[in-house]
Amino acid sequence: MFNSSQGQQINEAACDLAREVANEGDALVAGGVSQTPSYLSCKSESEVKAIFQTQLDVFIKKDVDFLIAEYFEHVEEAEWAVQVLQTTGKPVAATLCIGPEGDLNGVSAGDCAVRLVKAGAKIVGVNCHFDPMTCVKTVKLMKEGVERAGLTAHYMVQPLAYHTPDCNCQGFIDLPEFPFALEPRILTRWDMHKYAREAYNAGIRYIGGCCGFEPYHIRAVAEELAPERGFLPAASEKHGNWGSGLEMHTKPWVRARARRDYWEQLKPASGRPKCPSMSSPDGWGVTKGHADLMQQKEATTEDQLKQLFEKAKAS
Amino acid sequence: MFNSSQGQQINEAACDLAREVANEGDALVAGGVSQTPSYLSCKSESEVKAIFQTQLDVFIKKDVDFLIAEYFEHVEEAEWAVQVLQTTGKPVAATLCIGPEGDLNGVSAGDCAVRLVKAGAKIVGVNCHFDPMTCVKTVKLMKEGVERAGLTAHYMVQPLAYHTPDCNCQGFIDLPEFPFALEPRILTRWDMHKYAREAYNAGIRYIGGCCGFEPYHIRAVAEELAPERGFLPAASEKHGNWGSGLEMHTKPWVRARARRDYWEQLKPASGRPKCPSMSSPDGWGVTKGHADLMQQKEATTEDQLKQLFEKAKAS
Amino acid sequence: MFNSSQGQQINEAACDLAREVANEGDALVAGGVSQTPSYLSCKSESEVKAIFQTQLDVFIKKDVDFLIAEYFEHVEEAEWAVQVLQTTGKPVAATLCIGPEGDLNGVSAGDCAVRLVKAGAKIVGVNCHFDPMTCVKTVKLMKEGVERAGLTAHYMVQPLAYHTPDCNCQGFIDLPEFPFALEPRILTRWDMHKYAREAYNAGIRYIGGCCGFEPYHIRAVAEELAPERGFLPAASEKHGNWGSGLEMHTKPWVRARARRDYWEQLKPASGRPKCPSMSSPDGWGVTKGHADLMQQKEATTEDQLKQLFEKAKAS
Amino acid sequence: MFNSSQGQQINEAACDLAREVANEGDALVAGGVSQTPSYLSCKSESEVKAIFQTQLDVFIKKDVDFLIAEYFEHVEEAEWAVQVLQTTGKPVAATLCIGPEGDLNGVSAGDCAVRLVKAGAKIVGVNCHFDPMTCVKTVKLMKEGVERAGLTAHYMVQPLAYHTPDCNCQGFIDLPEFPFALEPRILTRWDMHKYAREAYNAGIRYIGGCCGFEPYHIRAVAEELAPERGFLPAASEKHGNWGSGLEMHTKPWVRARARRDYWEQLKPASGRPKCPSMSSPDGWGVTKGHADLMQQKEATTEDQLKQLFEKAKAS
Repeated sequence: MFNSSQGQQINEAACDLAREVANEGDALVAGGVSQTPSYLSCKSESEVKAIFQTQLDVFIKKDVDFLIAEYFEHVEEAEWAVQVLQTTGKPVAATLCIGPEGDLNGVSAGDCAVRLVKAGAKIVGVNCHFDPMTCVKTVKLMKEGVERAGLTAHYMVQPLAYHTPDCNCQGFIDLPEFPFALEPRILTRWDMHKYAREAYNAGIRYIGGCCGFEPYHIRAVAEELAPERGFLPAASEKHGNWGSGLEMHTKPWVRARARRDYWEQLKPASGRPKCPSMSSPDGWGVTKGHADLMQQKEATTEDQLKQLFEKAKAS
Repeated sequence: MFNSSQGQQINEAACDLAREVANEGDALVAGGVSQTPSYLSCKSESEVKAIFQTQLDVFIKKDVDFLIAEYFEHVEEAEWAVQVLQTTGKPVAATLCIGPEGDLNGVSAGDCAVRLVKAGAKIVGVNCHFDPMTCVKTVKLMKEGVERAGLTAHYMVQPLAYHTPDCNCQGFIDLPEFPFALEPRILTRWDMHKYAREAYNAGIRYIGGCCGFEPYHIRAVAEELAPERGFLPAASEKHGNWGSGLEMHTKPWVRARARRDYWEQLKPASGRPKCPSMSSPDGWGVTKGHADLMQQKEATTEDQLKQLFEKAKAS
Repeated sequence: MFNSSQGQQINEAACDLAREVANEGDALVAGGVSQTPSYLSCKSESEVKAIFQTQLDVFIKKDVDFLIAEYFEHVEEAEWAVQVLQTTGKPVAATLCIGPEGDLNGVSAGDCAVRLVKAGAKIVGVNCHFDPMTCVKTVKLMKEGVERAGLTAHYMVQPLAYHTPDCNCQGFIDLPEFPFALEPRILTRWDMHKYAREAYNAGIRYIGGCCGFEPYHIRAVAEELAPERGFLPAASEKHGNWGSGLEMHTKPWVRARARRDYWEQLKPASGRPKCPSMSSPDGWGVTKGHADLMQQKEATTEDQLKQLFEKAKAS
Repeated sequence: MFNSSQGQQINEAACDLAREVANEGDALVAGGVSQTPSYLSCKSESEVKAIFQTQLDVFIKKDVDFLIAEYFEHVEEAEWAVQVLQTTGKPVAATLCIGPEGDLNGVSAGDCAVRLVKAGAKIVGVNCHFDPMTCVKTVKLMKEGVERAGLTAHYMVQPLAYHTPDCNCQGFIDLPEFPFALEPRILTRWDMHKYAREAYNAGIRYIGGCCGFEPYHIRAVAEELAPERGFLPAASEKHGNWGSGLEMHTKPWVRARARRDYWEQLKPASGRPKCPSMSSPDGWGVTKGHADLMQQKEATTEDQLKQLFEKAKAS
């Protein structure tokens, strides 16, 4: 475990690295804060805000370009983060890791967005926990809420690169496959084309990715939106669009796959006939304040683990 | 396209790179030759062997540690390759990209192995085209053939990291998902544990991977065989065995996944309820000598492509 | 096609047959009316009600025990039916073929139920179009609506015997498998046990079935509720509960299936690895009043069919 | 349990019933014998043959038109049955319940067929245990064997109406879904069209069905072969070919399904996203002579069942 001073040093080094890479292109550097174990353990607003302030100090010292409050399951904690971040005068983005059903306290996606905008966020949206189409759906609900409230904002989306049609409101953490057997859920590049188009059509202009994204996924997003951006991403030099490189393949039936409609219509098989297509999320129905979620000083003991294993087998 | 002199320069540079990396650890460098368009176009034995000899010259100049004849669909061509390679006195390994049904001329896996050993290969096996369990099954058949013939050999296996239960004898090239929608077929690390154990139990001692393998897949293979090797791979420092790092997770139902039998028994869902679990391979039933496979001087023309697209849609 | 007088004769004969069978046991006879092509073609309330009245005359002549207004997609038309039926003084049940999203005009399930109760229905619920669990969910929403409105009613449910997780609000008619490839969706008897229990727990007391139900399905419903009813159905004589007849099977691993938890936990395989688990409903988004739904005097012409085939292929 | 005299009375009554129904049309009556618990318990050839002779006496008394030795897992016992049946001079058909891998003693399908023909069977084939396409494949192997041996025979096939791609050599008894959760595996009528055509093309002329067949399945077989037979089955009066009755459906997208290529190309969804598409057969690897298969005088005791349940859970 790290102490606070070590944490500071790590964050400073991270800011330097990010700036170095950003300078290679025309990119911005953001500093981000996320949900805290303190909030889940029901510590006070001032205690939680103090944690955000400590992290923020480094970002200001390193003069990042903008700030992100990201990966919050409860809009209340995200509001606290935005309130701290916006004191700096830098642009603040805020993302929740929620789905269309809203946050874990039952606040609707639209209401969450309104509260974040009112707290000072210029960009609102979601990241992580759900697949691209589900995330776009959630941001649409947020946008509708903001517009209904007569407010304005920019919108962002950073979904998983995993298909998660079977998630409940808590997202992919609760899927039995999390985190070490998610492979069959990985999106293809063609899924990414659809995602990018859908997100753009929904009015979202900050379109990215979270867990599971590989470089070729981001390239597919950039290629789909090349007409709007006016240029192809650098990595497009390595391959032909929509599989056109297959035109050179030895086997004629593979050459026949060198076309857009082939890949757009394909329903890819899993190669796993003994596996289902959807799972039942675990989720023992606990959230903020539940004893099981209280931050411990020590690692989980063997006895605690044994109890968990028994509980899991019985469920 | 490259001319022969450029090809030579590229191969020399590749040998240097490989040696540099090998020297970082206790690794060997191999030079490999593969099946040729000339063979599919029915050129003569001497023409095909001349191609292998040209490639071999570079490997000898760079003094690689051993030689591999790999990715052959027809054992006849692989024999030619082994015959050329073994003149150097260096150890020769030979792998076919075949499944349990044998090579594309219908020669059984056992007979293929016997012919390769007789041609001078010290190590025989398969690589690419099929998933790990299928490849292990094929090598078992090869080993039985070699032993029945009163010969001896070492055995190797370098399978795909994709599940391919639906392949015919031509392997994953013919699956509709090849090569740009294979994601749902990617093996988990737990699949790799099973593969490594199965391969070891079959008497295979050169256990590796081909298309689709990520570093964490190879790490899983090395971890499964740590008892036999006497040590864990370097990358094991980054994580706990069998998901034990999850003991620290905030959510108790995720902590309950920090154990071997959880991951061993899990049947991971695809998250793709509108996709099947198996596909029908394309494969238009053509092989060596078929007009469609003749090497062309030029890229496929638009007219040729259009014919292919029509043919594919009708099938 | 039949004329009105022939229709009357058929309905009279049907009432006689139903009464004959009902008299074999302790059963009631109901007369039912359903949604009309006239409503979809936007004919007037009085025209539609006249149709119901014509049908009702037979039921009164034959003195059925109660009346059902069933299989309505629009609550407005169901209300008209209930208004006609309740003039007889006989008990009236009313079922819509809707799901949890409400009727095809967007009226919520709860509001639909309230309107039917206010129109005079003593029993309200749903039939057809969705699978058992979905139907129970819908009736729960109806019950909540009725109770919120301070009204009272009895509840009924007559679902399909097909799994339909992929339906939109229009139900299984729109599934590509309707009506001649629904086999893989058929419920097992164990699914029926779960359904019966869930329906009972939801406060539903008229628990039946619609398309796809076989006698053994209804027997399973009756067996699940035997403790509440105080007796087993007659057909239980033919077999042992929860597969206990397997105790006599020759093969020991089949004898091991003679127990409740085996069947309750089983996730039955489809045996169709090349098929998906969910489909995309057709549904061209048309409902009441759309030209495509207008009643025609003549059968669909070949030209009309050809247009439909083209439209279907393009979608 | 019945004694021998009761068994005789039941069989006589059955012959009378069958003859009565056969006389309604132009049908034949067959008497059949099947595999015996005595064989599995390793009783002698003479003891087993005596059982067949006892059954045969009734068939001869009732003068059936032909005889069938059916549902044998071991060709040796089927040979004994054919030897007994052929003494009557009546035509004898013989079917095994095996798949393409041959009988449970490892005798190949081709060799099985040769032995049955040599024993006196005029018709050979398979029934039960496997799906239609698998059964046709097995009969093809039988036919090849018979022809290779210079013999002649007629061929018959009576498969399951369940998809069983995941069976091992013991057939569907070993599937976890047997016998009370086979619903998702039921063939559609369109699957039956394919089966009938495939069987006919393979030279099979006695084309029927076994467990799971419904009347509409047999009708589909008869309709597919109407061109060869020269007439449609009687039940075709009830519906239009290839779904043509849908031309009258209210909804235009359902009318668009009134055509052959729609149903031929459809891959029907299971509606069960949490279930796999293939299972792992149980099969504890025991056959003739194993203690677990010995015929018991008494039903399985509770203690024996408890042991089985434990064994099943551990596997």
